[in-house]
Amino acid sequence: MAPLDDSAVLSIGSSEIAFTTDSYTVNPIFFPGGDIGRLAVCGTVNDLSMVGARPLYLSLGLIIEEGFLFEDMERIVESIRNTANEAGVQIVTGDTKVVERGNADGVFINTSGIGLISSGVKISGSGAKEGDCIVVSGYIGVHGMSVVSARENFGFKTQIESDVAPLNHLVQAMLEVTNEVHALRDGTRGGIATVLNEIACQSGVGIEIEEEKIPISEPVRVGCELLGYDPLYVANEGVLVGCIGEEDCERVVEAMRMSPYGENSSIIGRVTSKNRGRVILKTQIGSHRILDLLSGEQLPRIC
Amino acid sequence: MAPLDDSAVLSIGSSEIAFTTDSYTVNPIFFPGGDIGRLAVCGTVNDLSMVGARPLYLSLGLIIEEGFLFEDMERIVESIRNTANEAGVQIVTGDTKVVERGNADGVFINTSGIGLISSGVKISGSGAKEGDCIVVSGYIGVHGMSVVSARENFGFKTQIESDVAPLNHLVQAMLEVTNEVHALRDGTRGGIATVLNEIACQSGVGIEIEEEKIPISEPVRVGCELLGYDPLYVANEGVLVGCIGEEDCERVVEAMRMSPYGENSSIIGRVTSKNRGRVILKTQIGSHRILDLLSGEQLPRIC
Repeated sequence: MAPLDDSAVLSIGSSEIAFTTDSYTVNPIFFPGGDIGRLAVCGTVNDLSMVGARPLYLSLGLIIEEGFLFEDMERIVESIRNTANEAGVQIVTGDTKVVERGNADGVFINTSGIGLISSGVKISGSGAKEGDCIVVSGYIGVHGMSVVSARENFGFKTQIESDVAPLNHLVQAMLEVTNEVHALRDGTRGGIATVLNEIACQSGVGIEIEEEKIPISEPVRVGCELLGYDPLYVANEGVLVGCIGEEDCERVVEAMRMSPYGENSSIIGRVTSKNRGRVILKTQIGSHRILDLLSGEQLPRIC
Repeated sequence: MAPLDDSAVLSIGSSEIAFTTDSYTVNPIFFPGGDIGRLAVCGTVNDLSMVGARPLYLSLGLIIEEGFLFEDMERIVESIRNTANEAGVQIVTGDTKVVERGNADGVFINTSGIGLISSGVKISGSGAKEGDCIVVSGYIGVHGMSVVSARENFGFKTQIESDVAPLNHLVQAMLEVTNEVHALRDGTRGGIATVLNEIACQSGVGIEIEEEKIPISEPVRVGCELLGYDPLYVANEGVLVGCIGEEDCERVVEAMRMSPYGENSSIIGRVTSKNRGRVILKTQIGSHRILDLLSGEQLPRIC
């Protein structure tokens, strides 16, 4: 089966809405640059944004282990509130379950969300078209490396702060330039290599990206080298990739760079008619390699 | 703070929708008459139904403990599918997380749901009006006693089967008779005594119910006596209480009895202008007692 989009797109009354759900089990629940609460709001806001919806309403389901510290819970709830305000979404319904000690890992959070899709907006993993440029909205691999470093306590001198952020304002800025935003995906589990593969597969196109154009920060590059990870497959929580109509591409990237959520946006490649269903990386030494789908799970419980 | 309704009621485009979420952590996950999957669909369908919405779309979030048996998961997913078909709702979006052994209790399920509210329908815990009759849709306390018996393995000779069921068709049958359905609540945690208290408090009315009119099955009555529970406070997953305009009451109850989900529907009391905010039980010997809100949790993890 082809991968699905990040949200379901549904009709309700005369409106088109997006609906999505995600459970968050990240370990540790506090990590540099974020926490499970911020992650739970951003993840669902971003899934709605990736089909072009304006996120409006979120639900919040908490499963709390008996004995979980009240002050930690308070910190998480405050983080949820702040992030919801930042994204401009309302948390309208919630549920809390407490399970006996030993029956959950501190706290698990589920957020579901509803967004409204404006008429004329049609964004899907199956929407990429030949000639589209591929954009990425920032430095890749930061969230995954942040969580892994915090969990394993490697003692890197440079602390890597997660980029976890709501991307809805960034997507709205892109859509103010043009409706020719054909495909969007946030590069969560499996990183940008995986989501580009999903787009190539769903859209039946080839994708070519150039290694030297991909924004990677020095700490992530070094951390990945030390640990044997490929940053193209490491999770992001504040970075999207998009396929944009050729003619509007430069203007879209300019608008993205104006947003605090996309200052390091770059064009990293293009959609091709050859190599359908595949993602090809042009390396810095000029050779080509196929970026396969990730098998197994490189980074467990980073979200 | 006054208790809220079972679902949030929201505007989206030109439509009025309901949105709700619930996590399910029931232990044991299979119990006589149901399982965590059926519970997760029914609970959310019912929360939508209690504000008069027609449930349309459900999300499904699974948190699975490593090592959980595949055949159990298959049984649960099949139960989810069958119950969604029974209720006539579509599961449109989902998410699965696996956590390490020991970090969850088998499986936790979150379902969120969206329903559409027809114009003219206005049902809320704050909507009860003086003179309304109080209806209950079936035998009470069955789900809670079923789960507790299964968990503690009391070896009762009569197995009590949970009544867990989707109540949306029943509510639609009520609304086909009249829009004078003022308040609805399914009697989940805390039983019908608790939800009647919520309605009395939210609506600022008194509620009087008559003990002898409350449908209680013999096995539940005996089980409760043995264990020291009050069936009025034991959880239900297939029973609602409603406040119906006096003039339409008989016809509504007739319609409810025609539904397979409300065969044992009964009028058990009425809404009064005295004793505002309180629920008064007229006992079989003619005395009156106040049914308080339950403090603490009589039955942990029955949902």
